[in-house]
Amino acid sequence: MKKLKVGIIGGTGYGSIELIRLIQKHPYLEIGSVVSNSQAGTPFSEVYPHLSGIVEQPLDKFDPEHLSENEFVFLATPSGVSSRQVPALLDRDIKCIDLSGDFRLRSSEEYETWYKHSPADPDYLQKATYGLSEIYPEKIKHSSLIANPGCYPTAATLGLLPIVKTNLADYESIVIDAKSGVSGAGRGLSITSHFAEINENIKAYKLGAHQHIPEIEQVLEDESGSPITITFTTHLVPMNRGIMCTIYVKLKEDVSIEDIQQIYDEFYKNKPFVRVRPQGNIPSTKEVQGSNYCDIGLHVDKRTNRLTIISVIDNLVKGAAGQAIQNVNIMNGWDERTGLTDIPLYP
Amino acid sequence: MKKLKVGIIGGTGYGSIELIRLIQKHPYLEIGSVVSNSQAGTPFSEVYPHLSGIVEQPLDKFDPEHLSENEFVFLATPSGVSSRQVPALLDRDIKCIDLSGDFRLRSSEEYETWYKHSPADPDYLQKATYGLSEIYPEKIKHSSLIANPGCYPTAATLGLLPIVKTNLADYESIVIDAKSGVSGAGRGLSITSHFAEINENIKAYKLGAHQHIPEIEQVLEDESGSPITITFTTHLVPMNRGIMCTIYVKLKEDVSIEDIQQIYDEFYKNKPFVRVRPQGNIPSTKEVQGSNYCDIGLHVDKRTNRLTIISVIDNLVKGAAGQAIQNVNIMNGWDERTGLTDIPLYP
Amino acid sequence: MKKLKVGIIGGTGYGSIELIRLIQKHPYLEIGSVVSNSQAGTPFSEVYPHLSGIVEQPLDKFDPEHLSENEFVFLATPSGVSSRQVPALLDRDIKCIDLSGDFRLRSSEEYETWYKHSPADPDYLQKATYGLSEIYPEKIKHSSLIANPGCYPTAATLGLLPIVKTNLADYESIVIDAKSGVSGAGRGLSITSHFAEINENIKAYKLGAHQHIPEIEQVLEDESGSPITITFTTHLVPMNRGIMCTIYVKLKEDVSIEDIQQIYDEFYKNKPFVRVRPQGNIPSTKEVQGSNYCDIGLHVDKRTNRLTIISVIDNLVKGAAGQAIQNVNIMNGWDERTGLTDIPLYP
Amino acid sequence: MKKLKVGIIGGTGYGSIELIRLIQKHPYLEIGSVVSNSQAGTPFSEVYPHLSGIVEQPLDKFDPEHLSENEFVFLATPSGVSSRQVPALLDRDIKCIDLSGDFRLRSSEEYETWYKHSPADPDYLQKATYGLSEIYPEKIKHSSLIANPGCYPTAATLGLLPIVKTNLADYESIVIDAKSGVSGAGRGLSITSHFAEINENIKAYKLGAHQHIPEIEQVLEDESGSPITITFTTHLVPMNRGIMCTIYVKLKEDVSIEDIQQIYDEFYKNKPFVRVRPQGNIPSTKEVQGSNYCDIGLHVDKRTNRLTIISVIDNLVKGAAGQAIQNVNIMNGWDERTGLTDIPLYP
Repeated sequence: MKKLKVGIIGGTGYGSIELIRLIQKHPYLEIGSVVSNSQAGTPFSEVYPHLSGIVEQPLDKFDPEHLSENEFVFLATPSGVSSRQVPALLDRDIKCIDLSGDFRLRSSEEYETWYKHSPADPDYLQKATYGLSEIYPEKIKHSSLIANPGCYPTAATLGLLPIVKTNLADYESIVIDAKSGVSGAGRGLSITSHFAEINENIKAYKLGAHQHIPEIEQVLEDESGSPITITFTTHLVPMNRGIMCTIYVKLKEDVSIEDIQQIYDEFYKNKPFVRVRPQGNIPSTKEVQGSNYCDIGLHVDKRTNRLTIISVIDNLVKGAAGQAIQNVNIMNGWDERTGLTDIPLYP
Repeated sequence: MKKLKVGIIGGTGYGSIELIRLIQKHPYLEIGSVVSNSQAGTPFSEVYPHLSGIVEQPLDKFDPEHLSENEFVFLATPSGVSSRQVPALLDRDIKCIDLSGDFRLRSSEEYETWYKHSPADPDYLQKATYGLSEIYPEKIKHSSLIANPGCYPTAATLGLLPIVKTNLADYESIVIDAKSGVSGAGRGLSITSHFAEINENIKAYKLGAHQHIPEIEQVLEDESGSPITITFTTHLVPMNRGIMCTIYVKLKEDVSIEDIQQIYDEFYKNKPFVRVRPQGNIPSTKEVQGSNYCDIGLHVDKRTNRLTIISVIDNLVKGAAGQAIQNVNIMNGWDERTGLTDIPLYP
Repeated sequence: MKKLKVGIIGGTGYGSIELIRLIQKHPYLEIGSVVSNSQAGTPFSEVYPHLSGIVEQPLDKFDPEHLSENEFVFLATPSGVSSRQVPALLDRDIKCIDLSGDFRLRSSEEYETWYKHSPADPDYLQKATYGLSEIYPEKIKHSSLIANPGCYPTAATLGLLPIVKTNLADYESIVIDAKSGVSGAGRGLSITSHFAEINENIKAYKLGAHQHIPEIEQVLEDESGSPITITFTTHLVPMNRGIMCTIYVKLKEDVSIEDIQQIYDEFYKNKPFVRVRPQGNIPSTKEVQGSNYCDIGLHVDKRTNRLTIISVIDNLVKGAAGQAIQNVNIMNGWDERTGLTDIPLYP
Repeated sequence: MKKLKVGIIGGTGYGSIELIRLIQKHPYLEIGSVVSNSQAGTPFSEVYPHLSGIVEQPLDKFDPEHLSENEFVFLATPSGVSSRQVPALLDRDIKCIDLSGDFRLRSSEEYETWYKHSPADPDYLQKATYGLSEIYPEKIKHSSLIANPGCYPTAATLGLLPIVKTNLADYESIVIDAKSGVSGAGRGLSITSHFAEINENIKAYKLGAHQHIPEIEQVLEDESGSPITITFTTHLVPMNRGIMCTIYVKLKEDVSIEDIQQIYDEFYKNKPFVRVRPQGNIPSTKEVQGSNYCDIGLHVDKRTNRLTIISVIDNLVKGAAGQAIQNVNIMNGWDERTGLTDIPLYP
């Protein structure tokens, strides 16, 4: 089978090099253009020496015409950029997977409120499909523009949806306490990603103000049919990769842990990348490192009748590049696991 | 002023060497016996080379008679040990500060349920004073046996008490999501403190089963006068020192962040080791590293009317050895800050 | 092509799970028996939850007869074990790749001196081929028993051989300063792999006594034809994976960095896993993480006429499991890169 | 005793906050002006929240007149800055401790070559005393301008001087392999101090080009009376604090480890901050964390007749702020240990 060419815009961030890693081992994809306006002309392996001898091609300038040799383009750009670039690509029949937040929120007002950028053109916004692969495979299959989910929303919604879709959850009680490694903040320089500040430290940030809040609520509301307002707190922990969402939900009636396990097992029975752990088995982030898995552990506290859900992903894989590839698999009608079956890197 | 001799039992754990560090710079205390049955006879600096040239004395065997040269003894022993040793010490008029959990719970049944050891002799248990320095200074002053609080309970209760003592908190809504560095697990060997397993990892543990749950509830109930059942989850993060409790409390009425700040400021106005941060300023664990501070940051989410409290301590200082020294200061009528005023080690 | 079954002995160590990771993505190999006497009967994914849903088979007891369903067996056992197990396997025509040190040293006396175990049976010892893939491919191809090189010796000898095989190096001047992540010490519990002891620390260990010294010297002497005695110091650094050897060699005459670069480029021109970096480009360990590459950077200090060689590998891949797979590729006449071409995991 | 006021210039770097930490617990010193031109007017605790409630004073602009209320000023500024500021301070009889490299090299040519800045005014340069406290106490006592040694030179020269001052060392054989935590690179933003790049990584940098090379050589030559050219390599390791120099020296004749131990013990017998470890006892960096100690371990390899010296310091204390305070103690005729006797923070 001839490999499909795929391009990448925003080529020097961590999301982008993770895409490169996954595309290179994908049996049906090959790397086309890699765009970085700020470093156009530089060989990629000069920016990232770990690619020496593997990806030596020079970085390109953004040019929709030139990009049309690619069947798919991944946009791994900061907020407010891809909304400007996608139209020219879609108009040339290039399918787009946007890893930024520009096409995730259906409401332009909400986007402006949380992102502080001007929103995407409504004509294009309405073409976008939210790319949570396990939940929306049919829509993804028929879309040309995928809004790839955020890292926290992926872990949070996959953890919450099975219980939220029953009538057991008290929707007003949902608290998501999220912890992330530092790669999620990108490669840009900032005092909050300075080694000596982060190492030997835990830091809560953006309390009540994280732009992933409306994204999570949109999914939960779509799937539950009810308005849901969550409390969501993010923490930076001293590690490179990994997100853990510890999620608390009050149960409206007495439910046993066995029942909860069954609800989750049933919900994800045909979803190879979601591994619901057996009772008493709680996943840690390292157990999905480098892989596209989302592992979920469950606990019911009888004293408080509260369900605790532990959901872990690798933020750069299932939380970004891996889910993007999974979506490309779905869009092409391939097995969604194609190129994504490697065992997590442990330890 | 002649220095008071203080002894340490359980001399080779992390709590113990932190006591050594703090006693050595205390103006009115000096190190007496250091007991470690397993390594008796070995010079302390051989076990801990960082003490070379500073603390060279050999470790002692446990012998109450010999310990009576000390005015105070700190017991930094595993659960189930100090309850056996304290009687012989108290009978010899040696004041005891127990850093283990043996004398913290008033109910022997609760102790057995959560600790899986037999409880302390009730005659001695009733002599014990719970040593949360900011809350019980008067009782501490007149006690001979201090049950020094656990690390998590210190951060959690100092974070919660100001709001719990108002009538604003919905007591059924309390969720404490706690994160700890690895030194809290002690120096004993275990796969869960093996470097390659913990590094680059976050791990939740003991869900709904941590022995600090009844300790936190006992304090909250004592101070609120109401039964309180909490949800409490502990996580191990890849760092040595530090605990952060992210605490979620539903507010029963609309309260502004300004009001909350004032409640906390007022509550801790004469408490030098609790630093309530101004609005918008959220502490991280590194900002108290090596110090006896408990720093508290506050956020009110108007969308959910939920208060988020971030409370951080150094688990080995305010969460163990530092608070023990603070209690000795109080017991002796000294300024509680004596020997504890050093600036946190940063970065 | 039908996949070959390969077995693993010593199944629960880090070397073993890295073998599992690499075998699972190898196109021509499949996992056969995994032996762990201490945990026989337990499903593998219970010991290592990251394998949930991927490798669920129970661990086996060591039984040569049962193992004969495998064409190859990897022995990832502690020193002194594989020398007892290999004979029974070879006698059943099972090809053996020994990842321990038992068959690396030709001299039984040297083995006893450095390893403090009794040496392998000389009849079997002489069947062993030292499996440094880049240097001995022909011998490896025709051998049934491979002594897979140690992690430090792989990085050190690949870094040194090009210059040692010229007559430019002063053989008495060789100093190898090696730094390793903690996974190299295995999964066994020890105070020197306790998180709180290693984190925020660098520690030199086994000065002048490391068992890899005679192994490095044996290779250098074989290839140079001269007696060579090295100074070799190992350090533990707070990370999981990666070895860096910083190697110092006095040059016997004035040589330019350009000449040195050319010697190295020439030496490794057909060796896909050794990436000699261009002048001024010095590799770091992360740049080979999770991959089978050995990256080499070079510097000549004109002031001292000393060559500094920086050689980095992932200790669990090129330093253990990856090189073992590379050797199986060579033994089967396959391209040595088969199954090993993934891009390093970065960051 | 009335406390002396001391000022700090370059107030927001890591060297500066370490000075603040040490001054605050010094019995005879108190913090005067803290200068940061870029953040003048901001309260110090806003830049560094760990100082909340402790050091609340606003940062000052540089103004020699205003600074004259201080008896001593520490300059913790980047290269090329203090050489411009010191003259105005000395002219006002303010004693200066310069923590930058501007006054360390006696040769202006060497300074320009290695630092790429214009050198200090020769009139002032010749007033400077190199502040290696253990070696030059008499000169320090009578000087008004101290060039406080670099972090690497402190560890390297203290490790080397005892053997270099005998006639046992082959001066052409000296190799210093140095490893440092990231705080040594300062708080400035750079891709080489970005968390995700440094964590899980070792990186060699500035091969043969580090500006500390001429500083080390100058000390060694002064003390040996012979020209000495060293090979010096620096590595960044993923931790905050700590430097280890692993130093290799060929011995010109057969010397036992016992003789070497005696040379070192004798050399440092009255130097409280240098702890020569007994035979077989090798220090790690954590064992001096937060303290002013330089710990030295020794090994003689009989096979190569090479001495290996392991010298460790906390780069921010003995490598910067601690030695600066030690020098102020010496300049004032106080015990050099004043304010510096705290036990290292462990673990």
